[in-house]
Amino acid sequence: MKDSSFIRGSVPMTKEEVRTLVLSKLELQPNDRFMDIGAGTGSVSIEAALRLTEGQVIALERKPEAVELIKLNAEKHGVVNLEIIETEAPLGMEKLETINKYFIGGSGGQLEQILDLIDRKAPADSIIVLTAIVIDTMLRAHNYFKSKGWSFELSQIAISKVDTQSAVAILKAQNPIFLFTATKTKSI
Amino acid sequence: MKDSSFIRGSVPMTKEEVRTLVLSKLELQPNDRFMDIGAGTGSVSIEAALRLTEGQVIALERKPEAVELIKLNAEKHGVVNLEIIETEAPLGMEKLETINKYFIGGSGGQLEQILDLIDRKAPADSIIVLTAIVIDTMLRAHNYFKSKGWSFELSQIAISKVDTQSAVAILKAQNPIFLFTATKTKSI
Amino acid sequence: MKDSSFIRGSVPMTKEEVRTLVLSKLELQPNDRFMDIGAGTGSVSIEAALRLTEGQVIALERKPEAVELIKLNAEKHGVVNLEIIETEAPLGMEKLETINKYFIGGSGGQLEQILDLIDRKAPADSIIVLTAIVIDTMLRAHNYFKSKGWSFELSQIAISKVDTQSAVAILKAQNPIFLFTATKTKSI
Amino acid sequence: MKDSSFIRGSVPMTKEEVRTLVLSKLELQPNDRFMDIGAGTGSVSIEAALRLTEGQVIALERKPEAVELIKLNAEKHGVVNLEIIETEAPLGMEKLETINKYFIGGSGGQLEQILDLIDRKAPADSIIVLTAIVIDTMLRAHNYFKSKGWSFELSQIAISKVDTQSAVAILKAQNPIFLFTATKTKSI
Repeated sequence: MKDSSFIRGSVPMTKEEVRTLVLSKLELQPNDRFMDIGAGTGSVSIEAALRLTEGQVIALERKPEAVELIKLNAEKHGVVNLEIIETEAPLGMEKLETINKYFIGGSGGQLEQILDLIDRKAPADSIIVLTAIVIDTMLRAHNYFKSKGWSFELSQIAISKVDTQSAVAILKAQNPIFLFTATKTKSI
Repeated sequence: MKDSSFIRGSVPMTKEEVRTLVLSKLELQPNDRFMDIGAGTGSVSIEAALRLTEGQVIALERKPEAVELIKLNAEKHGVVNLEIIETEAPLGMEKLETINKYFIGGSGGQLEQILDLIDRKAPADSIIVLTAIVIDTMLRAHNYFKSKGWSFELSQIAISKVDTQSAVAILKAQNPIFLFTATKTKSI
Repeated sequence: MKDSSFIRGSVPMTKEEVRTLVLSKLELQPNDRFMDIGAGTGSVSIEAALRLTEGQVIALERKPEAVELIKLNAEKHGVVNLEIIETEAPLGMEKLETINKYFIGGSGGQLEQILDLIDRKAPADSIIVLTAIVIDTMLRAHNYFKSKGWSFELSQIAISKVDTQSAVAILKAQNPIFLFTATKTKSI
Repeated sequence: MKDSSFIRGSVPMTKEEVRTLVLSKLELQPNDRFMDIGAGTGSVSIEAALRLTEGQVIALERKPEAVELIKLNAEKHGVVNLEIIETEAPLGMEKLETINKYFIGGSGGQLEQILDLIDRKAPADSIIVLTAIVIDTMLRAHNYFKSKGWSFELSQIAISKVDTQSAVAILKAQNPIFLFTATKTKSI
């Protein structure tokens, strides 16, 4: 789905290419249950919900204006299997034993607490995808996954785009993003 | 799908993240007809074929050992809606009026001839995705799309990966790739 | 020299790291004669002039406000071996037989004419450094150097910087730049 | 100086562009005293020594074969103001109160001890440049400079090079490198 298909206001949105990679790394199956932590405009939640034809998405977002946007975007795309909770994670992270896919796009400084809850409660083999633009978040995620001994991948994605409408074609750089894909390899 | 799920021998393969982005840019619908030009190991063809539940994939590849790999990979993944033609494009590019999605991963120096055929015969609004690692190919594609007045996007994708199994975590750079997504905006 | 040591107004300036690499690629010797084509704020000219203790810099720039900035910056740094010509190259490119180092930071669409003059008149083994952010300029330079059979290097430089003053450390990407270093290998 | 001007064997060497940026960030003055910690082939030491016409370079390196290379390279370039100490830093870091420029290209896991010595003994306003390819080293350096309240910059440098001798021009990526420049802002 294209960035332009989402209403976004001034709320930051995971860009199209990164959203595509995040959704791919989640290896979504139709009946997965997926939690989107720090859902922003809801672009990941909505694209996931459309794929989870027999599954469910729970979007956690603390900012009221972002929650409104998620609702608008869900309505626009006719999404019905999406529950939105206005909260700051880890508050609101419930019934994790039934949720097997996670995306952490924003953790508001509570990264370890969020991961600890997933560690304690989520099913074995749950997949956790995490994006970080902040150096400190990258380092904390790296240390967490390393210390837990989870199997994980780490990539840095740097994308530049040419504005082909412009008279002169210049590569405009997006800020690089760190992308983690971790698998919770221990049983509950 | 992961790189490791494909048999590849010594044939170059579009890497996982790039394959994910290519497939996303193709905006595949279940009944699309898709041509993969320079199919290599067939990784794009096979992932596309699995998505085209009512559609068809035609893979063109000139190297016999690559053609063998595509067959092996198709069999491994139980793909039945994939036709493989051992040829060097534009030879073998037939019935283009029924094909609405194209991926050009390798053009063997015949880029303009290939695009001219698509230009003349493919349905309006066909989507052409093209990856280039060679500077000259990038230039020629850019000039072609520009001169035809097709609507197109151009990105450069640079991915670095940490080998998280290694004792020291180092970002290993993959070579950057240019990714074009063009829409044939004129009618046949 | 730091970016902050130059007065710049709204004129684009070659960024510190790229300027450092450009000056390094020029392999400046104290008695070189150096021409800066499309000098902008004059940052490359001035840093070069300070190194050319027995040499000379000629800066060509077409925009009056940029010419004013070069003058201000030259005065600020006490540079005396810098001649500024308000012109659009190749106009004003004179006495090339005495000039052995060139930097082309902006060519205003006259790239081939500029390079042809250097080709015809500059001493053998002159070094030409060229930066391009525009795809088309990169391609034209690549084709020119290739067709002339000059020895040349091409790099793409992508730099991201953390604002370490900010509360959160985020890698901010600068637009990638193509950097050519060519040596005119034929004699006059 | 070009990479090819150094003898290197199998010892890793800071690549030309990065070496250029490191030397630039050191803001070398003719009478500086400079310590190169983890000197490898000595390429940074030697290029610095040639600039420090009235100054001195001390190169610390633990591997005997690298020490031999530094000696060979120093001899090749006629460098006389370079002292080589075969040791693993922080061992051998002496007389720091007289050394005002530092480059840490390799710290062998002793990063904090090395920086603590510089912190305690080096003159105020000493400049420390550090390159890291290992994620963990980057993290530790970031945390150290942050915790000390030193003024510092952090960049990530990603360079791709075209092999212009090759029949097809392909951008080959070098691994990205993190580059810190810190100024010790407190007095001794």
